[in-house]
Amino acid sequence: MAEGEAKVISTDPLHENEAVWTKLVKKTYIDPKGVTRTWESAERTTRPKGSDIDGVGIVAILEKETGPEIVLQKQYRPPLDKIVIELPAGLIDEGETAEQAAIRELKEETGYVGKVIEMSPVMFNDPGFCNTNLRMVHVSVDMSLPENQDLKPELEENEFIEVFLVKLDALWEECIKLEAEGYAIDARIANLAEGIEIAKRFKL
Amino acid sequence: MAEGEAKVISTDPLHENEAVWTKLVKKTYIDPKGVTRTWESAERTTRPKGSDIDGVGIVAILEKETGPEIVLQKQYRPPLDKIVIELPAGLIDEGETAEQAAIRELKEETGYVGKVIEMSPVMFNDPGFCNTNLRMVHVSVDMSLPENQDLKPELEENEFIEVFLVKLDALWEECIKLEAEGYAIDARIANLAEGIEIAKRFKL
Repeated sequence: MAEGEAKVISTDPLHENEAVWTKLVKKTYIDPKGVTRTWESAERTTRPKGSDIDGVGIVAILEKETGPEIVLQKQYRPPLDKIVIELPAGLIDEGETAEQAAIRELKEETGYVGKVIEMSPVMFNDPGFCNTNLRMVHVSVDMSLPENQDLKPELEENEFIEVFLVKLDALWEECIKLEAEGYAIDARIANLAEGIEIAKRFKL
Repeated sequence: MAEGEAKVISTDPLHENEAVWTKLVKKTYIDPKGVTRTWESAERTTRPKGSDIDGVGIVAILEKETGPEIVLQKQYRPPLDKIVIELPAGLIDEGETAEQAAIRELKEETGYVGKVIEMSPVMFNDPGFCNTNLRMVHVSVDMSLPENQDLKPELEENEFIEVFLVKLDALWEECIKLEAEGYAIDARIANLAEGIEIAKRFKL
């Protein structure tokens, strides 16, 4: 990163009357045998009314003569106190569809102008712990467009994102290398890379 | 499921003095421009001292003559109030390695006896929201072992898990079909399926 190194300077309990973006809830449920039990769950407070998802992840692939490349980001994340290797991603705005959010976030975070080609089912990030979820939106990026030659990201003042490209075919090795260099790896990328490796291993 | 239908009967605020498994924290950090900011983060309270992960996810593949099949589970998850399609998975016990946890959880949840063949980098489930993470452990299952013919899962009294197999090659279509039937899809499986589809699309 061009800027200085970000770091956590203190970690304190977040009292329930101060929490704005997150909350904990207690789910009382009847289990499959009819027994009443409780379960603790973490939630975002930001999911728009009527939306079935919190946000989107964006699989943006550039088709080059040397092979397809995927758009990745380096972004400092306070929950981990590390720079995380992530896909472009973002929360849904009120009244926005997943496709709209994907095109908007890709443009804002990376500058690339893309076109939606496919959408995943709703995916839940950690269903035993929280209800956060997203859809993965697959986007093609036409490199012949002038906007895609001269990228102009529009970051917010508290966003610090470095965009880079990785050959799809080398994504797994790249994840291992980046982890060894001290970066944290987002699960969406690592699982995607894993799927590619498994497809190769079993010649699917 | 053989048992009745599980369901949430109430959702209440979880007060901080009652939370046992989860907590919210406030991270005060210096951003890359030197500005002091705060960020809300959710955490599990259960990560063992000295462990860099909360748990493991298990990619257990059965090599059959008709093609490789992956071991999946249906499990009711109170945070979503839905039955979730998941990989076998579980939290690390104190003093346990990721490999040991994977072999133990696979046996307990599915009955399969497996052998570790590969391990992923640490993957973070939702780095803008929480610090929960896991390693994916790839396990081969030797179907010629008698234990793997006559499966004996050892579920805890509050675990209700139905195990099933899906052809690796059809994992993406199967995720879409299961979502249409009302199941929620765990991100690890859906991203893995996505990786397989991308590898096929680009002939990697």
